[in-house]
Formats: sequence, C-alpha cells, structure tokens
Amino acid sequence: MYRPDIKVVDCTIRDGGLANNSYFTLETVRAVYKAICDSGIDYVELGYRNSKKMFSPDKYGPWRFCDEDVLRQATDGIDPKGTKLTVMQDAHKADADDVLPKEQSVVDMIRIATYVKDVDKAIHLANNATEKGYEVTVNIMAISHEGSPFLDEALQQIEEETQAQAVYIVDSFGALYSETVHYLVEKYRMYIKTKEIGVHFHNNQQLAFANTVEGIIKDANFLDGTLYGLGRAAGNCPIELLLGFLKNPKYNIVPLLDVIGKTIIPLRDQIEWGYTIPYMLSGVLDRHPQLSMQWMEGSNPSKHDYVEFYNHLTDDPEQ
Amino acid sequence: MYRPDIKVVDCTIRDGGLANNSYFTLETVRAVYKAICDSGIDYVELGYRNSKKMFSPDKYGPWRFCDEDVLRQATDGIDPKGTKLTVMQDAHKADADDVLPKEQSVVDMIRIATYVKDVDKAIHLANNATEKGYEVTVNIMAISHEGSPFLDEALQQIEEETQAQAVYIVDSFGALYSETVHYLVEKYRMYIKTKEIGVHFHNNQQLAFANTVEGIIKDANFLDGTLYGLGRAAGNCPIELLLGFLKNPKYNIVPLLDVIGKTIIPLRDQIEWGYTIPYMLSGVLDRHPQLSMQWMEGSNPSKHDYVEFYNHLTDDPEQ
Repeated sequence: MYRPDIKVVDCTIRDGGLANNSYFTLETVRAVYKAICDSGIDYVELGYRNSKKMFSPDKYGPWRFCDEDVLRQATDGIDPKGTKLTVMQDAHKADADDVLPKEQSVVDMIRIATYVKDVDKAIHLANNATEKGYEVTVNIMAISHEGSPFLDEALQQIEEETQAQAVYIVDSFGALYSETVHYLVEKYRMYIKTKEIGVHFHNNQQLAFANTVEGIIKDANFLDGTLYGLGRAAGNCPIELLLGFLKNPKYNIVPLLDVIGKTIIPLRDQIEWGYTIPYMLSGVLDRHPQLSMQWMEGSNPSKHDYVEFYNHLTDDPEQ
Repeated sequence: MYRPDIKVVDCTIRDGGLANNSYFTLETVRAVYKAICDSGIDYVELGYRNSKKMFSPDKYGPWRFCDEDVLRQATDGIDPKGTKLTVMQDAHKADADDVLPKEQSVVDMIRIATYVKDVDKAIHLANNATEKGYEVTVNIMAISHEGSPFLDEALQQIEEETQAQAVYIVDSFGALYSETVHYLVEKYRMYIKTKEIGVHFHNNQQLAFANTVEGIIKDANFLDGTLYGLGRAAGNCPIELLLGFLKNPKYNIVPLLDVIGKTIIPLRDQIEWGYTIPYMLSGVLDRHPQLSMQWMEGSNPSKHDYVEFYNHLTDDPEQ
C-alpha cells in the first residue's frame, strides 16, 4: 500500500526561522531534532547555511548560519536512528566556501533554494555541495510567479547539469490549487527524468497538506512539512497530518504529538503563525506575504479591519 | 470559466450553533445575514428547525428552533438581494408539524440532515417540506462511517422517493481525503440522476476547503461553508476561501471580510474552533469529535498532553 520511495523532510527550525530571524533556543532545537529522529522521518533541516556577509549575526540567530559547532551542540548525544541532517543555502545569499568537506561535517544534505533567475548560482552551489560529498536538492521558490520559457530552461539545466537528488516545487505564496499542483508536477516531469520531484507548500489557503497529498498522487516523493505548520506567515504543511496520512509503518506520529504539546505550542507566545485573513488574501491574490505580515504585527490597531487591508493590498501599484 | 449551476450555502449560524448550543445574539445573526446577502451567496442557513420536545428551550438558544417570528427579527429590513433563507431539520429530532406552509414562512429551503439508518424519517420530512412548498435537500451525515449496501439503498430511495434539489455528502468527522471525495461523488452519481450533489466538509485535517474544491472538480454543485470556518470542533470550509476560488462574478468577498473582522473574530472569546491536535487525531482516526471536544475544554490541565489524549482515544474499546 505504501510507496517506499517517499522521503519526508521536517523543516520546522529552518522555515520557522523566517518567522523569528532564526532565534530558537538550543533546548527547542534539540527537542525538535530528537522528536523527528524518533518519529522515523527521513530528514530534519535545522536552518540555513547562509553567508555572514549577507546576514548580520547581530540580527539573526545561529540557525541562519548553522555553524558546524552549533549543529554539534544541537545533535550531540541524540540517536539519529537513520534520520539525516540537512541545511539550506539560498542561491543568492550563500557562499560555497562556507560548506566544509562532508568528512568534517555533521550535515548529510544541502538544499539550495533559488528563484528561476538565479538558477546558475543554484547550480554552482549544488555542484559545490555534491563535489564535497553531500546529498543535494534544488528548490525553486515562488513557483506561482514562474512560467515558460524560463522555468522550462531552468528545469532542463538542473536535470542536465547537477546531481541533485530532487528538484522542488516551492509555493512560497500559498497560491496553488490541486489543479496547478498537478500541472506543475507534470511539467517538472517533462524535464526531470533522473531525479525525484519534491513539494513544499504554504498554508495561506489551508491547502498546504492537501496540495502535498496531490503531489504524492502525481508521484512527488520528497515531501516537506513542519511541526504544527510552524513557519513564516500562514505556515507550512503540518507534518503530523502528513504522518497521519502516510502508511509506511516506519513512521511514528507519537513523538510528534509529544513535542508539539511540550515545545511548539508554547512558542505561540513568541511567534504568530497560521491562517489569518491577511495571509489568505495574499494567497488568493498570489502575492508575497510581506504586506500581510506587517499588517498582522501586534501594534497595528486596524489588524482586524480586513476590508482596509484588502484595499491596501489591491490598491498597490504592483497590481 | 465558471459554472453557473454552483450554489454556495453559508451555514455559519447553523453549524456554529453546535459549538454554543445555538446561543447567538440577534445582532450577530443580523450581521451575518446581511453580509451573506451582500456577498451574493445563494443560501444562508440561520439554524435548525428542530423539535422543542427533543431539545429543551431552556438549554438551547433560539437558532436551534428558528421560530418564524425569530427569523423575521433576524431578517427584517435587510435586502436579501436574491439570497435564499434555509433552516435544517434533523431527521431524528424534528417534527413535520413544525413546518408551516411556505406562504406563512420566510424560509425558502429546508435541509434534512440524516444518518443512513434514518433515511425513511428523512424522506418523510423532505416530502413534508416539498408538499408545503419549500425547496429541499437531504444531507447524509457521518458519511465516512457508511458503506454499501445501505448507503446505496438510501441514495436510490432519495432519488426515487423525494423531490430534493440536492443530496449531500457530509463528512462529519473530517476524515475524507481527495480520493475518498472523488469516490463518494462518483458513487452518489450512480444513483442520483435528477438532483444535484452537495458537499459539507469538516476541517479536522485542514482539508475542508481542499475537499470542497475536489467536490467541484467532480461536479458537486451545492457547496457549504462558514465564515472563518466557524463550526463545531475544527470547524468547516471557510466560505471566504471558497469565494476566493470561485470565479462567478456575482460573488463579492468584501462583505465577508468585513463581517469576519467585526463579528466573527470577537466570537473567539466565547467559542473555540479550528485546527488542534485532538481534532486532527479524531479526523485521522475517523472518530466523532466528542472526546476531542471534552479534552479541549478550558478546565483540562492536560489539554496539551497530546500523547495522553492519543492513548485515551486509541485505548477506547470502540476501537
């Protein structure tokens, strides 16, 4: 009944870090890491390996850089039980030299996040990681804003010029519906013949889990999720829903339930994420969530004046 | 691009009434009614027309009974602009005599909610309403617990013995996935040849909106939703998402945004609804949300001990 090729990737700390500038306590990261390892999930992503030249360490926490010693503190003494460790590099904000040879690193996989226009930078970083001994994926962000012919060309290049294990559809704006997911997986498959297809969805329209299932139906095998959907703005596919759906007996939902109750729920006092009307509107209108995030800031007295926000969003000259 | 046969039904007050024993203020109901009429939504359901012999008016608010004078107070002076008024009768908890002839009523449609085993009672109530001049639907609840041959027989009977406009798939437990939605619409269509198919989904797995879209894709034309998903436990398909998706230019999302911010958001101080781990688990396990609702009550100090809840739920002899 189940498809053994499916790999689940938890990116709670990495994507959640977009909501708190990657300031998680070591205790939080260790609790998440342990729970993911105990649950049988295939990969756990503990942050970005981005460049300190482009992000100031004064303004961003340690999980934006994932120095090797920091990762060791996060993982030491915890049995990974087969779960692999991954970090992400942004194609336009990372440095190939920040990646050590695999023998000197606790990282197993490096995921390169890119816009279509930065695909050559992404390929450079992907090949750098491959050469140094890591597994690699290339994750194409803001996919709802990308059309032919540049997307097609990027896919062809990634297929031919990298040894990535998977190429991702990343719905940064939470704008896709099941039909667009089907369309995109089919388009990817036209070019991606030797690699897996991955899916990473945002929850602006409460479709992140549903779209992940649609990806599975169309044969995507790399599936991203986060605990309780923690992530920027409306958040991500809740990984507990994904484990509730998948049938592979190696997965165990109980450690996830435990860490959500004890570690993730208390974070709600510091980080706001999940479905709100401003995030819903940015999803429906296929817009970056930035204006919505500003609107939802605690200090805005008009926070719940959604008509004013709608006008604000649709009056913007970008439209 | 759009399908003119599609009818959207707002059931905020009716389904939300399951979360507060139908105690909404008249001001709330009027605000919801006005917003729905202004948005171009086809039907608005203001409650149940259930029997006072089976529900005590001491324990339930006016929207459990929807007396004609109460409905008049809720709607007087508001231009319906084509939006029709509906109430629901539970097949096993309503009385045919509580339905006046249409000429004496402000109601346009009566929806009969039933379990498969009560289908003969439902048909009796449906035909009572038809004879008295109303539009009618029959809504089969707890559909994830129903299989052949009794469901098939019920569908055949409803097709042959009633003049209902639509027959609904009601996923009371939030347990369906897109594949089960497709399967059920196709099964319904084997028997339901002269009526529309309707869909009413719960949000335990964040699939209520996604499954509604899957229903649309398979040709369901009666679509239920509620403002901001308000409803029992995890709630329903958020009707604002549905209007964001549908293309018929007669629908206008702005009045919904307005009433959500001004009327629905403040209700969160009195009513808890939406995605939580206990509701998620009842959806994944295809169980009634009752145990989850008890667990989530404010007074439970173990509310966020989800492992304990999971054990509680799966140790139950019903399994």
